Amino acid sequence: MLRDPEASPLSIELIVVTPHEFSKAHIALISCRSFQSLDYDNIENHLFLEEERRMGHMSFRCLEISRWVICGLIGVLTGLIACFIDIVVEKLAGVKYVVVKKSIDKNTEIGGMCISLILWAALNSAFVMVGAIIVAFFEPIAAGSGIPQIKCYLNGVKVPRVVRLKTLMVKVCGVICSVAGGLAVGKEGPMIHSGAVVAAGVSQGRSTSLKKDFKIFEYFRRDTEKRDFVSAGAAAGVSAAFGAPVGGVLFSLEEGASFWNQLLTWRIFFASMISTFTLNFVLSIYHKKTGELSSPGLINFGSFDLKYNIYEIPLFIVMGAIGGLLGALFNVLNYWLTIFRIRYVHRPCLQVMEAMLVAAVTATVSFAMIYFSNDCQPLETQKSSEDYSLQGFCADGEYSAMATAFFNTPERSVRSLFHSPAGTYKLETLGCFTLVYFFLACWTYGLTVSAGVFIPSLLIGAAWGRLFGSMGVLTTEEQAGKDAYQHSRFYFAGGIVRMTLSLTVILVEATGNVTYGLPIMLVLMTAKIVGDYFIEGLYDVHIKLQSVPFLHWDAPATSHSLTAREVMSSPVTCFNRVEKVGTIVDVLSNTSTNHNGFPVIIQTAPGKLCGLILRSQLIVLLKHKVFVERARSRLRQRKLQLKDFRDAYPRFPPIQSIHVSQDERECMMDLTEFMNPTPYTVPQDTSLPRVFKLFRALGLRHLVVVDDDNRVIGLVTRKDLARYHLGKHGLEELHLAHT
Amino acid sequence: MLRDPEASPLSIELIVVTPHEFSKAHIALISCRSFQSLDYDNIENHLFLEEERRMGHMSFRCLEISRWVICGLIGVLTGLIACFIDIVVEKLAGVKYVVVKKSIDKNTEIGGMCISLILWAALNSAFVMVGAIIVAFFEPIAAGSGIPQIKCYLNGVKVPRVVRLKTLMVKVCGVICSVAGGLAVGKEGPMIHSGAVVAAGVSQGRSTSLKKDFKIFEYFRRDTEKRDFVSAGAAAGVSAAFGAPVGGVLFSLEEGASFWNQLLTWRIFFASMISTFTLNFVLSIYHKKTGELSSPGLINFGSFDLKYNIYEIPLFIVMGAIGGLLGALFNVLNYWLTIFRIRYVHRPCLQVMEAMLVAAVTATVSFAMIYFSNDCQPLETQKSSEDYSLQGFCADGEYSAMATAFFNTPERSVRSLFHSPAGTYKLETLGCFTLVYFFLACWTYGLTVSAGVFIPSLLIGAAWGRLFGSMGVLTTEEQAGKDAYQHSRFYFAGGIVRMTLSLTVILVEATGNVTYGLPIMLVLMTAKIVGDYFIEGLYDVHIKLQSVPFLHWDAPATSHSLTAREVMSSPVTCFNRVEKVGTIVDVLSNTSTNHNGFPVIIQTAPGKLCGLILRSQLIVLLKHKVFVERARSRLRQRKLQLKDFRDAYPRFPPIQSIHVSQDERECMMDLTEFMNPTPYTVPQDTSLPRVFKLFRALGLRHLVVVDDDNRVIGLVTRKDLARYHLGKHGLEELHLAHT
Repeated sequence: MLRDPEASPLSIELIVVTPHEFSKAHIALISCRSFQSLDYDNIENHLFLEEERRMGHMSFRCLEISRWVICGLIGVLTGLIACFIDIVVEKLAGVKYVVVKKSIDKNTEIGGMCISLILWAALNSAFVMVGAIIVAFFEPIAAGSGIPQIKCYLNGVKVPRVVRLKTLMVKVCGVICSVAGGLAVGKEGPMIHSGAVVAAGVSQGRSTSLKKDFKIFEYFRRDTEKRDFVSAGAAAGVSAAFGAPVGGVLFSLEEGASFWNQLLTWRIFFASMISTFTLNFVLSIYHKKTGELSSPGLINFGSFDLKYNIYEIPLFIVMGAIGGLLGALFNVLNYWLTIFRIRYVHRPCLQVMEAMLVAAVTATVSFAMIYFSNDCQPLETQKSSEDYSLQGFCADGEYSAMATAFFNTPERSVRSLFHSPAGTYKLETLGCFTLVYFFLACWTYGLTVSAGVFIPSLLIGAAWGRLFGSMGVLTTEEQAGKDAYQHSRFYFAGGIVRMTLSLTVILVEATGNVTYGLPIMLVLMTAKIVGDYFIEGLYDVHIKLQSVPFLHWDAPATSHSLTAREVMSSPVTCFNRVEKVGTIVDVLSNTSTNHNGFPVIIQTAPGKLCGLILRSQLIVLLKHKVFVERARSRLRQRKLQLKDFRDAYPRFPPIQSIHVSQDERECMMDLTEFMNPTPYTVPQDTSLPRVFKLFRALGLRHLVVVDDDNRVIGLVTRKDLARYHLGKHGLEELHLAHT
Repeated sequence: MLRDPEASPLSIELIVVTPHEFSKAHIALISCRSFQSLDYDNIENHLFLEEERRMGHMSFRCLEISRWVICGLIGVLTGLIACFIDIVVEKLAGVKYVVVKKSIDKNTEIGGMCISLILWAALNSAFVMVGAIIVAFFEPIAAGSGIPQIKCYLNGVKVPRVVRLKTLMVKVCGVICSVAGGLAVGKEGPMIHSGAVVAAGVSQGRSTSLKKDFKIFEYFRRDTEKRDFVSAGAAAGVSAAFGAPVGGVLFSLEEGASFWNQLLTWRIFFASMISTFTLNFVLSIYHKKTGELSSPGLINFGSFDLKYNIYEIPLFIVMGAIGGLLGALFNVLNYWLTIFRIRYVHRPCLQVMEAMLVAAVTATVSFAMIYFSNDCQPLETQKSSEDYSLQGFCADGEYSAMATAFFNTPERSVRSLFHSPAGTYKLETLGCFTLVYFFLACWTYGLTVSAGVFIPSLLIGAAWGRLFGSMGVLTTEEQAGKDAYQHSRFYFAGGIVRMTLSLTVILVEATGNVTYGLPIMLVLMTAKIVGDYFIEGLYDVHIKLQSVPFLHWDAPATSHSLTAREVMSSPVTCFNRVEKVGTIVDVLSNTSTNHNGFPVIIQTAPGKLCGLILRSQLIVLLKHKVFVERARSRLRQRKLQLKDFRDAYPRFPPIQSIHVSQDERECMMDLTEFMNPTPYTVPQDTSLPRVFKLFRALGLRHLVVVDDDNRVIGLVTRKDLARYHLGKHGLEELHLAHT
């Protein structure tokens, strides 16, 4: 959930839609105000250039070295957090398992299973309640998997509070609670988010929340550098979660980077590697096998040794298509559910209650399934040490297959479904499990708890794939069926989240088998094509529901007929090079426009562009009262330096908090030194794809549209470009409210 | 070798340097004329926009589908070519092996080993002669590994003739001859080049060489689209060569793409996958195991099952450092050798003779090594079936280890070095082999034959690693040494070629073991850092020697003090919107300027920019005689369409071939419809890094510098930016001759 608590009164007012308007709801749900763009384009003003020119060759080398050091730190910290989550979840799940198992074992003999059920449900609800309360009351942005937020951040949208320390704490505790609470969730998405927060924190060398400034890495206190580190953090998170360093790099690139830079990629790769390494190292100590580093990340699917044959390829494609269909169904259901939640479940206490309800229902359904299933399998002693196998209502020396599927943490269930020998599960067990888990997972995603959807989707895929495979054993050639289900497991994740390339690589790396690439890619690609026909990927659905001005890779194909003149915002509020303080304060205080960037023009030649200045810069200038008159009267006043801007970054105070007296309003401010004197411009006849390409490739926030005489006639921002979408009937313009 | 035959007289004149000027030679070796930039920026003129606006939603979807089809085709064809090379090389090497072995076996008994030696040397020389002749006389651009050329192409430099059908033919035959001729070369680089040529051919839907136009894919006949396909082709080549589809994608991205586009990446990945798949499928048929697809690419290092431990990490770093040092030595030696070759060995017949000499020397040295080595190992029957093990001068039931290392194709030797059990090779054998092979490989790279350096460098690394490991067994802990040499093998390739990320992934994929990532990365990164201290990577050395205007990822760090005004070329030749034909012809014919892009200005307001037109466009206009007077007189004359430009692409005729009569010289040409009306511009105060970023991110060819009134004052091209390098003493400006 991307909701910004500060903006929530606004959001709620805007979203009063009747149920039959659901399909159009995402157009109505517009509250763009809470999202600002990041400034990836360096503000090359005089101060900046002066600093850069002063720096020698060696300083740049030192900077480069500190970038590597930071990436190493990010990797280490992300790995440690992943370890922490993993170990605590295991411990809690272990305790819960012992308690519940004891109760069940006791009650199976004496009757009164209700008590066990209530105990189980109560335990789960308690865990989930804690998780939901900290999320709902302390940091709502920590809800969900965090991947949509990171996608937005890497895309260039500043989602408020998303990379703060508090978010990290809530996220980590929240995910521990929700996984231990037995919800149908995974801990991978939150780990990616954690990595990003770590990166944003470490790279700045200070914590604004803790009011602690280490006075290091000050050079990196701007959006350009911070974004680079956040991509490294996200990659390190993926790497720790899945043991897939290359997959992490590709995730960051697939989701974020618009300009591919070789050195940056190497640093990202380095962070990923270090993260996997740290995780493995700490876990090897924890598991008392110190120093053995060859085990992969948190998810270990075990190794596969199967071969595939060419006649299985159509089978993969069929499975991919079914996966795409089911994925689309999942997304549609979750879309409706989210709309419902945004409308009716927006109060924190309601959200906590819903989460507890889901936890209780999950426990009850699981319990009922175990109770009514009669799938008893002989107990093998060597297995019981690894899995939490449950005797349930089976005879002695046997265990309940359904209980194994439901009573474990999702990761363990996936591994059991992947590796248990044929015949471990009956057809009915698999069928029931798939169906029930599908709806549970769908209901769970979007709750106000911190949790990911990746593992549940993989689990559903694995169960369904095993079902498909088992049916295959009965109906078609035995070998084909047996092999086939080995691949089908992956299709479902593809159907839901639709990240083809990085997901392929993640799965290849997680299974440790390179030759699997082609079938996995085929299944994922088919799933994506089929799924995209119906609805977007789950993350994109949620991003769209929050009406984030998200820029896709290219402008819509048919948008060549639009030009900059048609898409730009106009008229633009411009400032003179030397401007009256009063005017500046008035413009900044005007909540109806709320602009963030202002072209600076030459007084003598009306409208002629000479620079661009940002709201955040003006606020710093006002705060330090950098007025022409003052500079004259007090000659020895300290000159404003780049450091002052860096100290204020990233939480620039609002204009309301800055007091400007009536006298000061009459002063003048000289913007020459602080404005960016060479903003990128386009002529007004430039086609939309061309504007889009420039905007996206350089990560711009403001693009000035000028006429033949270099006079400002408009300003293109992210929101102007994000409006256009390729709908069923060609180009569509979303009516984004320009709040 | 990047030499362009058409420009060779010029090159030769320019490179008369005395030996002691070697170190400065790369500055003198300037002949930029033969290299042009590619136009990655779409020329969005009226014709183009009209076409785009006419196209509906469905047409764009069809285009997208054809892009996927083309990528599939590229994959299939690249895979087939890889199969062809592989099978033919195996066959030829097999025949050679049988002949020479028979002779040696016979002569060992009766004495007279000279005859065997001469036979071997003659066979090798004959093969190499054929390979060298076709390269030297028919297509000199096919020499070398082709990777530098592909790097240049992806960087945006059009190396003449590099993606032509003839080059492909020569490349394929050449690499077969040189590998079969026993040179210290690999076949991987040429395969990457082949993939790129296939892509450039298939995507255009025609062959200019064969004068065959299939009338398909006409939309893709421009640099932007072609470059995308060429990156897919290169990736498919890597994928076929190493069985590493993800490595292929990363190679393309690391070397080429400046703007990362998700869809493009997926297509590249698709092409890579298909290529590996095709290769595996055809080889599985060839090896009579139809349909078993799980084997990786051409190089199969076999599977590794070793674990590593944390205390080995310093060992990896030490090995990486040594690898970097040796790699730097290799590159320095090869650099001097190449300077020598450019100066003295520039005549084709000399080149052929040098190649033959190297082949004969390689055979002789190998023979001598086998003859004088007394490293006899007991023959295991199950091994002889796979390797060509040679009895040599050993007793019956034994084979010569040195012969195994030297007499095989390089791939087989690598595998033998990786997998033979401990004690297979004696220390002296490994030492001699490493030393001799190092110099042979160094001498061989840069010969006028088509061959890659990757496998030789891996082979040297493997031999050295095994040596290091064996010494480790003697001196330090046994296990550590044994494990260590398993990784050291990879260091050498890193030291020479310095592609960290993609190489790591390629090696991880080729060894099929994901958990190896960290040690491989550590070794490669150390090697790169150490090596970079001394000299650039081998490919970059060769690119620099040809003085290609290669743009790196970022502007030099300390270049903020330079502005567009200082780097731009000025004055600029501009055209009026309606220009006299005579003027245009004169400007285009002026060989002393030889510009390729011309700003178009408004007559009425002097100097005011209104568009940009390319030499190639003007030539098409002149060819079709699109004059204002003609349009008036013959109203029904066919209007010039985009198709006319596409038909002329990419081999636009030179201006000299277009006849313009004296009358026609007085006509006027209206450029309005054909020029790009919205070229990217920057103000003159823009800093160099900012210009560089814009240029690199958008893949520009011309960037117009304007003043405050939008008047043209200069033009920045690739050569203006490529001039600046970060040397030992800060920013250095290369004195590129503006020929």
